[in-house]
Amino acid sequence: MSSKYTALKQECYEANMQLNALNLVVYTFGNVSAVDRENGVFAIKPSGVPYEDLKPEDIVIVDFNNNIIEGTKRPSSDTKTHAYLYKNWLNIGGIAHTHATYSVAWAQSQRDIPIFGTTHADHLTVDVPCAAPMSDILIEGNYEHNTGIQILNCFKEKNLLYEEVEMILIGNHGPFTWGSTAAKAVYNSKVLEVVAEMAFLTLSINPNAPRLKDSLIKKHFERKHGKDSYYGQ
Amino acid sequence: MSSKYTALKQECYEANMQLNALNLVVYTFGNVSAVDRENGVFAIKPSGVPYEDLKPEDIVIVDFNNNIIEGTKRPSSDTKTHAYLYKNWLNIGGIAHTHATYSVAWAQSQRDIPIFGTTHADHLTVDVPCAAPMSDILIEGNYEHNTGIQILNCFKEKNLLYEEVEMILIGNHGPFTWGSTAAKAVYNSKVLEVVAEMAFLTLSINPNAPRLKDSLIKKHFERKHGKDSYYGQ
Amino acid sequence: MSSKYTALKQECYEANMQLNALNLVVYTFGNVSAVDRENGVFAIKPSGVPYEDLKPEDIVIVDFNNNIIEGTKRPSSDTKTHAYLYKNWLNIGGIAHTHATYSVAWAQSQRDIPIFGTTHADHLTVDVPCAAPMSDILIEGNYEHNTGIQILNCFKEKNLLYEEVEMILIGNHGPFTWGSTAAKAVYNSKVLEVVAEMAFLTLSINPNAPRLKDSLIKKHFERKHGKDSYYGQ
Amino acid sequence: MSSKYTALKQECYEANMQLNALNLVVYTFGNVSAVDRENGVFAIKPSGVPYEDLKPEDIVIVDFNNNIIEGTKRPSSDTKTHAYLYKNWLNIGGIAHTHATYSVAWAQSQRDIPIFGTTHADHLTVDVPCAAPMSDILIEGNYEHNTGIQILNCFKEKNLLYEEVEMILIGNHGPFTWGSTAAKAVYNSKVLEVVAEMAFLTLSINPNAPRLKDSLIKKHFERKHGKDSYYGQ
Repeated sequence: MSSKYTALKQECYEANMQLNALNLVVYTFGNVSAVDRENGVFAIKPSGVPYEDLKPEDIVIVDFNNNIIEGTKRPSSDTKTHAYLYKNWLNIGGIAHTHATYSVAWAQSQRDIPIFGTTHADHLTVDVPCAAPMSDILIEGNYEHNTGIQILNCFKEKNLLYEEVEMILIGNHGPFTWGSTAAKAVYNSKVLEVVAEMAFLTLSINPNAPRLKDSLIKKHFERKHGKDSYYGQ
Repeated sequence: MSSKYTALKQECYEANMQLNALNLVVYTFGNVSAVDRENGVFAIKPSGVPYEDLKPEDIVIVDFNNNIIEGTKRPSSDTKTHAYLYKNWLNIGGIAHTHATYSVAWAQSQRDIPIFGTTHADHLTVDVPCAAPMSDILIEGNYEHNTGIQILNCFKEKNLLYEEVEMILIGNHGPFTWGSTAAKAVYNSKVLEVVAEMAFLTLSINPNAPRLKDSLIKKHFERKHGKDSYYGQ
Repeated sequence: MSSKYTALKQECYEANMQLNALNLVVYTFGNVSAVDRENGVFAIKPSGVPYEDLKPEDIVIVDFNNNIIEGTKRPSSDTKTHAYLYKNWLNIGGIAHTHATYSVAWAQSQRDIPIFGTTHADHLTVDVPCAAPMSDILIEGNYEHNTGIQILNCFKEKNLLYEEVEMILIGNHGPFTWGSTAAKAVYNSKVLEVVAEMAFLTLSINPNAPRLKDSLIKKHFERKHGKDSYYGQ
Repeated sequence: MSSKYTALKQECYEANMQLNALNLVVYTFGNVSAVDRENGVFAIKPSGVPYEDLKPEDIVIVDFNNNIIEGTKRPSSDTKTHAYLYKNWLNIGGIAHTHATYSVAWAQSQRDIPIFGTTHADHLTVDVPCAAPMSDILIEGNYEHNTGIQILNCFKEKNLLYEEVEMILIGNHGPFTWGSTAAKAVYNSKVLEVVAEMAFLTLSINPNAPRLKDSLIKKHFERKHGKDSYYGQ
């Protein structure tokens, strides 16, 4: 069946399958979306469909007010969080949510992941933020929409920019990551999981391990992202 | 060879093979059964047969008093525990038992698994119960039958309903899980193993990690299981 | 090339390859042997040959005084330990040695692995013994031969029978396991690794986790190994 | 396209792919080089190219002053560190750098890896050295070149010989390893990762685990590397 969103669905489908291939999800725990800014919609995984059964045509097209534009399946139960982020953060192209083991463990610990080394600094210059659990009133209300608000509040409080810090932990829940494309959002989910495992091990070996020096944070981030970056092709 | 239990054996066989595919067992450690309520029997893995050798026709059909109804092999040594549960819990369709690593570690620790996050709350609203080791007299008696009694006693003491809490740890031994089908019982074994690993890591990172707030427990469980649930298709 | 030891070499080869398939070794770290009591010889892996290159005809045939009887390759550097055990323990048919991660970690910790649960009790009724490092004089002498002496001394001191306890950790080094066949020795290496991982996790979750009750130790071992055993076919 | 460096590129390509096959890298985190002493050049992985896309002709040829001799891609951002080591250590043939999990965790802990057992002693007779983070002035300067200086300074301070100790951790960053060939450098990266995991587990089980006795260190190293070595073919 032809559709103006065929390419968008395919991008979204491939990013979701990548989540599975990278061992970031079991069963149906997790979802990725990809945005089409021109048409003001995004493509997202249908709710509760196992990755081995997922097909590109199952992907649901939703607008930023959570209306289903195309698709016969119910979209991910986290759809409103994605919509809220797309609406507010105009420069992101994709969002990923997982229940990856080490990322969730830090979220359950309600602790920011300290920046312990260059693997972390290659991707962001601050601790990975962990948003506090939201108030009972917000939980009982429009929960997934409020999760979006919670993310933006955390970035405001900690004075972070979403273009520079492409990941967050929701306390007691798990990670959300984003990026210029759905594939980049998935990449950030994997990086976060690797960094989370390394930080867990670091603390186990040396509970007093120091944070990375500012000079090294700056150096490594600029190697990859600064105006004189010299990493990559 | 045709039998009125061919479909039941096939369901049981596939669920046992799934246990293996999900890395929940090594060698012959573990077993799954599937019930046929109409005929008052269940299908169960034969004892000590490696998964790579297992065939659908090896599955044994047993009634709720542990009599072999069909099959040439000896049924799992845990058969009496399965029979006791089927006899007492009329709404379950399948049971799984594993020696999965993280689940066993919690059982050996003789501790309930605290509900630390939403991955847990998506499946049950309480800590995963760990039954205390049984008394010496019960161990020396009809051990596997008494394991069934131990499970029911634990649920009575903790005031739990088997329809809502589909898993338990037997202290010093390992997990039993159940569900509406054998496949659902295996699903619950995998979920338990994931939750057990996350809880181990959470405690390692933050020994004072708090339990999940009641409002979040309620929200996540009802997203998936409440009367207004909106997860899945 | 035909040989009276073709079948013995094949058994030894397959057991060594199984060590690799079970993720118990990397590179050339580990070796398995299989005995032929009638001819007073055993087959053992050649030293330093990677598993992906190993062929049945590479296996070396050695007698109990460490003379090469057949084969063009140098036998495993641990050959004298194997020879000493075969000479002294008349009822074993195979021996395995690995550097599997969790088993080595306990050996490096110089601690017996406490019997914490039924996975352990299904295989042995005591803590997995860890032999103390040998004296400097024995190390500087006939090291691998003395490792055999060290194993027998540890069993004598702890009053253990090799027919009942088919595994040991050598302090600071790693595990040796044995059994009625080479395949059974490899099975015991895998069981030891699983038990070692579970015990590590148990202690992490609950540093005061109690040992398994005597009644449960007895029950589980006898289910599998007692005169009225009812496990397996 | 024919080149005098075709064989060198192939060696470098295969060693890089091996890094990936041994689970020592994710994405583009890591690089291996291989030297051609006669022509005073080395082959190195191009920067930021995923392993699944890497082809032998992508490998870049660089001289010891960091000039690109052949190749259309930008070489690894760590090229200057490789160049510095080749220039100063005349007997090495290959260098590997990874962000392998356990190795990085020790580097982030800023601790040498204690020699706890024979798996370690089979490869080196001392703790795996961890170089302190470099001064801010050196970081802001010619960073990758200065990483090479940092490595040599650490070896001088600790009185180590690069022919005997073929690995180092850079504090807060990760491991560099080397050897007579690129394949040997990769082998050492894998050994280091195994040793790092075992040491982490050893400390978790027994925080007071003693270092290996001198007599055992000597014995195991000489079995493999001494003049009367008897390991291997």
